[in-house]
Amino acid sequence: MKQNLKIQIENIAKKAKSASGRLSILPTAAKNAVLKDLASALLKGQAIILKANKKDISSAKNKGKAFIDRLSLDALRIKQMADSLLEIAKLNDPVGEVLRAWNTAGGLNIQKVRVPIGVVAIIYESRPNVTADCIGLCFKSGNSVILRGGSEAINSNLAIFNLFKQVMQKHNLAEGTINLIATTNRQAVDYLLKLKDDVDLVIPRGGEELIKKVVSVSAIPVIKHYKGICHVYVDECADLNMAMNICLNAKLQRPGVCNAMESMLVHRDIAGRFLPGMLKKFKQAGVQIRGCVFTQKIANWVKRATEKDYRTEYADLILSVKVVDDLDAAIAHINAYGSRHSDSIVTDDKSSAEKFLKQVDSACVYQNASTRFTDGGQFGMGAEIGISTDKLHARGPMGLEELTTYKYMIHGCGQVRR
Amino acid sequence: MKQNLKIQIENIAKKAKSASGRLSILPTAAKNAVLKDLASALLKGQAIILKANKKDISSAKNKGKAFIDRLSLDALRIKQMADSLLEIAKLNDPVGEVLRAWNTAGGLNIQKVRVPIGVVAIIYESRPNVTADCIGLCFKSGNSVILRGGSEAINSNLAIFNLFKQVMQKHNLAEGTINLIATTNRQAVDYLLKLKDDVDLVIPRGGEELIKKVVSVSAIPVIKHYKGICHVYVDECADLNMAMNICLNAKLQRPGVCNAMESMLVHRDIAGRFLPGMLKKFKQAGVQIRGCVFTQKIANWVKRATEKDYRTEYADLILSVKVVDDLDAAIAHINAYGSRHSDSIVTDDKSSAEKFLKQVDSACVYQNASTRFTDGGQFGMGAEIGISTDKLHARGPMGLEELTTYKYMIHGCGQVRR
Repeated sequence: MKQNLKIQIENIAKKAKSASGRLSILPTAAKNAVLKDLASALLKGQAIILKANKKDISSAKNKGKAFIDRLSLDALRIKQMADSLLEIAKLNDPVGEVLRAWNTAGGLNIQKVRVPIGVVAIIYESRPNVTADCIGLCFKSGNSVILRGGSEAINSNLAIFNLFKQVMQKHNLAEGTINLIATTNRQAVDYLLKLKDDVDLVIPRGGEELIKKVVSVSAIPVIKHYKGICHVYVDECADLNMAMNICLNAKLQRPGVCNAMESMLVHRDIAGRFLPGMLKKFKQAGVQIRGCVFTQKIANWVKRATEKDYRTEYADLILSVKVVDDLDAAIAHINAYGSRHSDSIVTDDKSSAEKFLKQVDSACVYQNASTRFTDGGQFGMGAEIGISTDKLHARGPMGLEELTTYKYMIHGCGQVRR
Repeated sequence: MKQNLKIQIENIAKKAKSASGRLSILPTAAKNAVLKDLASALLKGQAIILKANKKDISSAKNKGKAFIDRLSLDALRIKQMADSLLEIAKLNDPVGEVLRAWNTAGGLNIQKVRVPIGVVAIIYESRPNVTADCIGLCFKSGNSVILRGGSEAINSNLAIFNLFKQVMQKHNLAEGTINLIATTNRQAVDYLLKLKDDVDLVIPRGGEELIKKVVSVSAIPVIKHYKGICHVYVDECADLNMAMNICLNAKLQRPGVCNAMESMLVHRDIAGRFLPGMLKKFKQAGVQIRGCVFTQKIANWVKRATEKDYRTEYADLILSVKVVDDLDAAIAHINAYGSRHSDSIVTDDKSSAEKFLKQVDSACVYQNASTRFTDGGQFGMGAEIGISTDKLHARGPMGLEELTTYKYMIHGCGQVRR
């Protein structure tokens, strides 16, 4: 008899919780050996993965080219997935790090020690490489993981997962160490998100729709990133060539990603010198501009920006532009319209830069650099599990450390409280 | 015309958000000067506070002695509130601390810097001293605060708040820096808990009912502490005198608080030597014991513990007792029945202690000390805003640092991403 879906999901979560105890104390060398075997399993299992992936692609053939591209695997992509696991094996193990240690007046020794979070659930969309990355990152950080991928990638995800399962068995790791919810029934996610006693953290990865749904349903804490409405503010003291270079890069180097510039702010005193050339370059690059009245005066081909434009993540070749009175106006605009992700000021004035960096309430604030650097790899943290626009627990790129919490370990010699 | 309640609450949150920008960059010396003035204001305003407190007490006269005691202020308690503010002034300012700094291969300088969270809302019950403590802690950590106290303490809270308001005005701080929701209408909290764009964190302080309600309604991240079901496990290698001393202290030094012992676990090999004397002492101290079959064999006056007993925070002179087969059984029991708060092992065996400290999944794990030490003051962190049994962001005692988050400040010289 087929098991009831709710009970199935509850059992997965219970097994994950139970596995997390032993996983949390697994030595670094043992974890790295598993990661290396996971990488080998991908390479050796390439034919199996590609066969499963073909099935997914043929079911998705009406979904458009970009969709198919995200879903598709080939030898190179499988190699990249394997390399990513080997890279994770090389990263420092955050578990067990003593963050602080001190003795109290009463002679207690207190250590604040980094420990895994426990069980992490990841709800994601169509890219199958996420399956391997998330298992690698959660495993290295000592967390059991429950994956729920998009239904379009179900065959690819299962193929990867089953190869990994064999590696876990070979290393005598508990069944619940890694988990994939194999049904495409959407109710499964609703059940999962209520299991707050067994699941400690949910990370949704995907579009705004998916994330909003997870947040609205979840009884488990969620770390998320809704949108990337990133700004570059070109200050009155900017080197205008540098500014142009940074703005072009922030918009064009990869327009579809969350750390691309969506809105450009320009100090009014340099707008007349900066904007004509800048807008021309964007036009040549095929970028549609939506600007304020002042921007329109400089370039009459510019469409007028609405309030909504300044709150929109286009993830496309569209840019909103606004001329602002001063630094304060730029900061106020970013804090009101931005998404707390990544914002940059181009200026040679140190005090303006420091004011911007302190007062813009975003995860990553830049002076004289492109917003495109907000990324675990670029930061030198290694692979990332996502970027948080939340403020609690993890902010900005999330690597291994951000998948840990801490506990206090206290050693005494019989102390009691007076 | 009286303003609509929903709009009133929205305006409070907007003002708090707007004030948080300037507060986040207020220099330490300026913050400490304000804290000293807040302490003076309490002492100078003593007559006003006591008069308001009398009103609250006379409305609450049917609520029982313990309730009235929690609500009551006198000269000593006001002095303690003032002292607590002066102590907060002396604590290190966590804001601006560089947690880490490095240069990337591409020449970017990245600093991970501690910053305030923004706007913190605190929902609490009848103790009026919480009003002063929370304002002090949030202010020092650079956060705007929105307080919502219990309706029984409304006059006392308003009196304290109005005195503080004058200090804020004197120092030219924005109106939204500190906020008190003055209505006793319960709908106000429901409105507040939806304002996720303006409020960054909610901390409920009070009974389980209050906390569950806040968690179920809130669209804002909540850090909470539900229950303290703390254990002491007396290991086979325990010094039995030390164990008795620790257990008596953990249960009796203040039975009504969250870090008191609710459940005592005893290794079966020493149960026969340890339990008779231990249970006798508890009986003499008026502690009611609910035990397992084995406990009942040792003391026939012991009531049988139910499953529910092992999950109950009595906060009273009642203790559940269980004899366990070994260390693994003790750890499994605590992880299954405990509340992830504070648990202690009494043992002289180093490897058993390390296993317990690593595998018990609680905020504070002790070897050879009473669970009663879980407290910001006892830890040497200074005043605390609460104790978190959550795993994310803050775990265990929460002081000033736990009221902060971080951002990445990146300085470049024109870098763009290739």
